[in-house]
Amino acid sequence: MSAGRQKTGRIAVIGLGPGSPEQVTPEATRVVSEGEEFFGYTPYLDRLDLRPDQLRIASDNREELDRASAALKRAAEGKKVCVVSGGDPGVFAMAAAVCEAIEAGPAEWRDLDLVVVPGVTAMLAVAARIGAPLGHDFCAISLSDNLKPWEVIEARLEAVARAGFVIALYNPISRARPWQLGKAFELLRGVLPAATPVIFGRAAGRPDERMAVMDLADADASRADMATCVIIGSPETRVIERGERAPLVYTPRFLTAESRR
Amino acid sequence: MSAGRQKTGRIAVIGLGPGSPEQVTPEATRVVSEGEEFFGYTPYLDRLDLRPDQLRIASDNREELDRASAALKRAAEGKKVCVVSGGDPGVFAMAAAVCEAIEAGPAEWRDLDLVVVPGVTAMLAVAARIGAPLGHDFCAISLSDNLKPWEVIEARLEAVARAGFVIALYNPISRARPWQLGKAFELLRGVLPAATPVIFGRAAGRPDERMAVMDLADADASRADMATCVIIGSPETRVIERGERAPLVYTPRFLTAESRR
Repeated sequence: MSAGRQKTGRIAVIGLGPGSPEQVTPEATRVVSEGEEFFGYTPYLDRLDLRPDQLRIASDNREELDRASAALKRAAEGKKVCVVSGGDPGVFAMAAAVCEAIEAGPAEWRDLDLVVVPGVTAMLAVAARIGAPLGHDFCAISLSDNLKPWEVIEARLEAVARAGFVIALYNPISRARPWQLGKAFELLRGVLPAATPVIFGRAAGRPDERMAVMDLADADASRADMATCVIIGSPETRVIERGERAPLVYTPRFLTAESRR
Repeated sequence: MSAGRQKTGRIAVIGLGPGSPEQVTPEATRVVSEGEEFFGYTPYLDRLDLRPDQLRIASDNREELDRASAALKRAAEGKKVCVVSGGDPGVFAMAAAVCEAIEAGPAEWRDLDLVVVPGVTAMLAVAARIGAPLGHDFCAISLSDNLKPWEVIEARLEAVARAGFVIALYNPISRARPWQLGKAFELLRGVLPAATPVIFGRAAGRPDERMAVMDLADADASRADMATCVIIGSPETRVIERGERAPLVYTPRFLTAESRR
């Protein structure tokens, strides 16, 4: 490998947005068109319309660090490499895995040209379909206890619910993690009003989109799957009924007098 | 006004992303091209390349509810109205103001076709330019005490810092609110390690972009202006030095053993 080839290498970590082609930014489209090798979880790679000269290296969803290292290795060999994520690559996705691999890897990986291309992350797409539930202070929590202990997740949920944040839950449920979302609802029922709106936003902007709103008292974890982002309102969050149209859910920009404690 | 005209009215609340034309989604571009009347804060309207037949109604940044009501009125009169925001319209922006106006306004406003077009919000664009600081649980807080009391902001900052969230601060400073960001840093210095990375991300993706990283101990509020999103790391957030290249800042996807309390 020559020094010259090294200098042409680049690694781009690209967010493809929640799923609709209309929500892929022109920047993402351009960087994809410039790429030579594409690393990612199969369903994300399937969204790309690659040319015959563009190479596709698919891997399982759980092999993030291996995938990042393989991609960095090819970039160091001079290739224009793309690592693709759904949504935004910086939100519970590949950008952090690539940074982890860079920190742990050979010094030459730090010299690589790294570009992160942001995208519309799931909670924003879900919020847009239902009104403006993230209209005031909010947080995003991954409910996966593969990478942090469940007690930490519980402590975080309780802290933000008590402090009045709207909560967006990523990775709410999977075959290997079937009980966590139900447990989270149980905990939140002890902190938030029973009528707090809960949004189940599945596959926002895709043909199989499904949106549902219910009270926290009735929130049923079995409504969620791996493609769902769950948004739990704050005590301020309001529902506007609209007759035959779907209700709007929003969190006002201001705090009402009674909530100022 | 005939019933027929009412039915053709539509109000779209559009996120134009952080500023680069490459980060405007094709969906936003399409909805803009379909619009007849455009309501917004002047700098956001200035980003649009409107046709002579498209009407522009600019207003000051503080008149959000009036602007929303004026836009809804025109939509109810049968116009295809666009309300434009920078970033994502659902994050401290116009989507919540439009929902507030709908809830308080005449019943016919609930019958209007409302479309919210999501966009890349500032914290995602800033994070992408610097690595992956939002790679684990994070929150977004507006530091404006125009719409909520300062004590609530302090309580929220303390709750999320103690619970281990990365914190993105929107509206960190303005001429009318000069001291709040300094006070927030002061409070956070009492909770977080002195070496916690703080990112000042100004105008991400625009020609006047400016990114700076410093330790919380040295974080200087005067570095921020109205176009800045400030991201404060968690105790997990790491900085990778890269010689001549700008350092990378990221938050690992997992919790390290020593932080599991």
